[in-house]
Amino acid sequence: MDLVIAFDRNVATPLYQQLAEELRKAVLQGRLKPTQKLPSSRLLAQSLGVSRATVSQSYDQLLCEGYFEARQGSGTYVCRELPDEGFAVMPHAPGTLASTELHGLSRLGNHLLALDQIESLDPQEAISFRYGSPANALFPINLWRKLLYRHCQNTPAHLNYGDAAGYFPLRAAIADYLGRARAVQCRPEQVIIVSGSQQALDLVARLTLDPGDWVAMEDPGYLGARHCFMSQGAQLQGIPVDAEGIDIEALSHHSQPFKLLHITPSHQFPTGVLLPLSRRLALLQWAQQTQTLIIEDDYDSEYRYSDRPIPALQGLDQHHSVLYVGTFSKTLFPALRMGYLVVPPAWVTVIKRAKWLCDRQSPLLAQYVLTECLNEGHFERHLRRMRHLYNQRRQTLVHSLTHYLGSRVTLLGENAGIHLMVKIDTTLPDEVVIQKAQDLGVGLTSAQKYYLETPKTGEFILGYSQLDDAQIEQGVKRIAQIFNASS
Amino acid sequence: MDLVIAFDRNVATPLYQQLAEELRKAVLQGRLKPTQKLPSSRLLAQSLGVSRATVSQSYDQLLCEGYFEARQGSGTYVCRELPDEGFAVMPHAPGTLASTELHGLSRLGNHLLALDQIESLDPQEAISFRYGSPANALFPINLWRKLLYRHCQNTPAHLNYGDAAGYFPLRAAIADYLGRARAVQCRPEQVIIVSGSQQALDLVARLTLDPGDWVAMEDPGYLGARHCFMSQGAQLQGIPVDAEGIDIEALSHHSQPFKLLHITPSHQFPTGVLLPLSRRLALLQWAQQTQTLIIEDDYDSEYRYSDRPIPALQGLDQHHSVLYVGTFSKTLFPALRMGYLVVPPAWVTVIKRAKWLCDRQSPLLAQYVLTECLNEGHFERHLRRMRHLYNQRRQTLVHSLTHYLGSRVTLLGENAGIHLMVKIDTTLPDEVVIQKAQDLGVGLTSAQKYYLETPKTGEFILGYSQLDDAQIEQGVKRIAQIFNASS
Repeated sequence: MDLVIAFDRNVATPLYQQLAEELRKAVLQGRLKPTQKLPSSRLLAQSLGVSRATVSQSYDQLLCEGYFEARQGSGTYVCRELPDEGFAVMPHAPGTLASTELHGLSRLGNHLLALDQIESLDPQEAISFRYGSPANALFPINLWRKLLYRHCQNTPAHLNYGDAAGYFPLRAAIADYLGRARAVQCRPEQVIIVSGSQQALDLVARLTLDPGDWVAMEDPGYLGARHCFMSQGAQLQGIPVDAEGIDIEALSHHSQPFKLLHITPSHQFPTGVLLPLSRRLALLQWAQQTQTLIIEDDYDSEYRYSDRPIPALQGLDQHHSVLYVGTFSKTLFPALRMGYLVVPPAWVTVIKRAKWLCDRQSPLLAQYVLTECLNEGHFERHLRRMRHLYNQRRQTLVHSLTHYLGSRVTLLGENAGIHLMVKIDTTLPDEVVIQKAQDLGVGLTSAQKYYLETPKTGEFILGYSQLDDAQIEQGVKRIAQIFNASS
Repeated sequence: MDLVIAFDRNVATPLYQQLAEELRKAVLQGRLKPTQKLPSSRLLAQSLGVSRATVSQSYDQLLCEGYFEARQGSGTYVCRELPDEGFAVMPHAPGTLASTELHGLSRLGNHLLALDQIESLDPQEAISFRYGSPANALFPINLWRKLLYRHCQNTPAHLNYGDAAGYFPLRAAIADYLGRARAVQCRPEQVIIVSGSQQALDLVARLTLDPGDWVAMEDPGYLGARHCFMSQGAQLQGIPVDAEGIDIEALSHHSQPFKLLHITPSHQFPTGVLLPLSRRLALLQWAQQTQTLIIEDDYDSEYRYSDRPIPALQGLDQHHSVLYVGTFSKTLFPALRMGYLVVPPAWVTVIKRAKWLCDRQSPLLAQYVLTECLNEGHFERHLRRMRHLYNQRRQTLVHSLTHYLGSRVTLLGENAGIHLMVKIDTTLPDEVVIQKAQDLGVGLTSAQKYYLETPKTGEFILGYSQLDDAQIEQGVKRIAQIFNASS
């Protein structure tokens, strides 16, 4: 018996109890095995330097508890069947969080572990031009609360498992809205409710990509999508983006057999440019000829300030080559985690199964609320209000940039969305600009990380949805100081 | 020009408008290409059998709309740049839902498509012994509504993106509860909030399995887990389950290098048996020796009626080889889509990244409500009430089975959970039993589909959580008629 048993003679716990505890732990940790014979009490007492009575008492306790059994004339043994209770006493301090080893990861696991990071960290300065979220402070929370209250019921359909594709009336309401606002052409059955656009991208990536497959992406392009494709082991081909979106000539010069093309045609991420109709048609033709599936990621196309919103690729497609992705994260609020995927009819079954596999279905209560929100016009009223607000904030941003930075700044993209990408004419590296802005209490993000092939410098993304006019002006004024001081 | 243009002379729409519409469609569908020259109005009029004025008028309209351009002395051309508006008019009838082809699926996509089904369909009879859901009708919905109302606020943290691992106070509350109720040993950081246990299984499968890897599973075992492993291309080895759970001797005779073992030790699914402590310890030792990760799926262990709930494997594990999965689907309600994964410290980063990849995070509002529900004792009070109720329903079921079916029925499993598996001594095939039960208005499920290797017959799963005493008795009485009539 090489049991290490430590006694503490300074505590009130009797020795026999301390010994019993140690022996129990040895059994539970597998150091003493079922049916193993224990040393005689005399021997153990000797080796531990305690009285024989102490050992006997501890053995008795474990006999009582069912850990040990005595066999007539043979001695004491660890039971073959151990008691199911009493082991919660075991001390177990899980050390610091990085202290253990990781083994057994899959290709995906190793890929994710090797990434620098996957979540983007928003700048946290007092005036932060963070992007990707709407003006949550102005969300009509009282209305939402009222609708939640109304729909929170315990009829079976509300609390039980439901259709993996989502609540049918919501799918119908979304089909309706998308037809009206985005010229998307679909039946309710083609709409699949997902937990935000990220889940839509992940589902499509999993259903279409095997390791080694090729994916074409806008360059610069959306990181959340890139991560999904890379996680499937796909090879990425960045396609340059110019003032009219993805360069289709460049795209068609590539001879790889692309499985997927990911595109943000109505407000390219991050540049903000818009793909005109001629390119849309050319793209659809390319997709048909090359048998490539297009993921149309329509993440914030609801916000368009000059003309009416540009209709979706999906509605132009005659060959079922578009999978359309949308989200309520930019129109309602991100923590809702609600988005949708519109798929060609033949895709409905397999997407539903993939959704079931991932998480069975999205939560139901929010789907009831959202359905009423859409059907009663609350959603579009909210959109109109926010469009007006964002337009105003955007104008303030544009005026401030022109006023304070003058010819040093070039505004990229269209009059749309909830962020603006700018090119600043400077020799300062992006990190220095960001650091100097931080020192002035202003949060900025460089566009560098969104480039796949050759990152450009001096490009910054300015989200304006969460800042009021005064903050926007003040923020731009401080940014200008960086360059006035350094030039 | 091989344009097929159909005129309907019986409708009120003027011919030139019909022609303009067809030409516009041809442009949008790519049959007429940008910069392509159009036939002269004389030629087209001739070939279509209409007047030249009709063609000219239609050309004029498309010139106005920006689809065509006239070049001095050269003729009419399709514009290089097409207008971005007006094409929402295109008719597009998406036919029936199965009419299109599916191409470009990945291995996973093809696997899911080839499956018979993935969602299980609950029996819908008047008296349905469906299982897997709690007694939703008795859920304290008023309390839940009150908490929702209280936490539905538009502070930034409530509406914005948050930590992919979940709301920290909820993770702490769960760590606390699991330590108390399940002897799980962890820090809050090790708890990851997921959208139900299905997502936990999918995340772990993706992070650990590459095609060809081996997974050991209980046989019979849980289908939702099996689908996850198969979807990763893993090879499955079923390990027989006896009256004390998974047969560890059988397990250790297999020489494949297992990546994962999935197990439901505290209420084996579907048999309901309980893995005793000795086997738990042996299993942990096996896992350590073979470097196998264990997924401990503790899906309904909260319901135990004889002794106190049996503590989790996770708390016994000294080597960080257990990934612990739990869900609120059986304790609160399924449509909530809220579960948790407790991982060894080294796993936290990679699991968070995988969660981000899948859907960024779970919805936040429900996490706030759940936190209060746990911290204020509402959750455990509800559990106590339901445990009492299910115990009573289970007793009614057991008495009814014994009374009406006598020696023909063998009850399997422990006094726990919210379903009971029974073996009925009959020569009738399972499908016949189910059909006859249906004819009598009773819904039953055979356990056959849960077997991986050799399905047994005559085994049925009876969920009793959603039936009252009278329904249970009546249901069993009718089941008995099947055999009394046929014997």
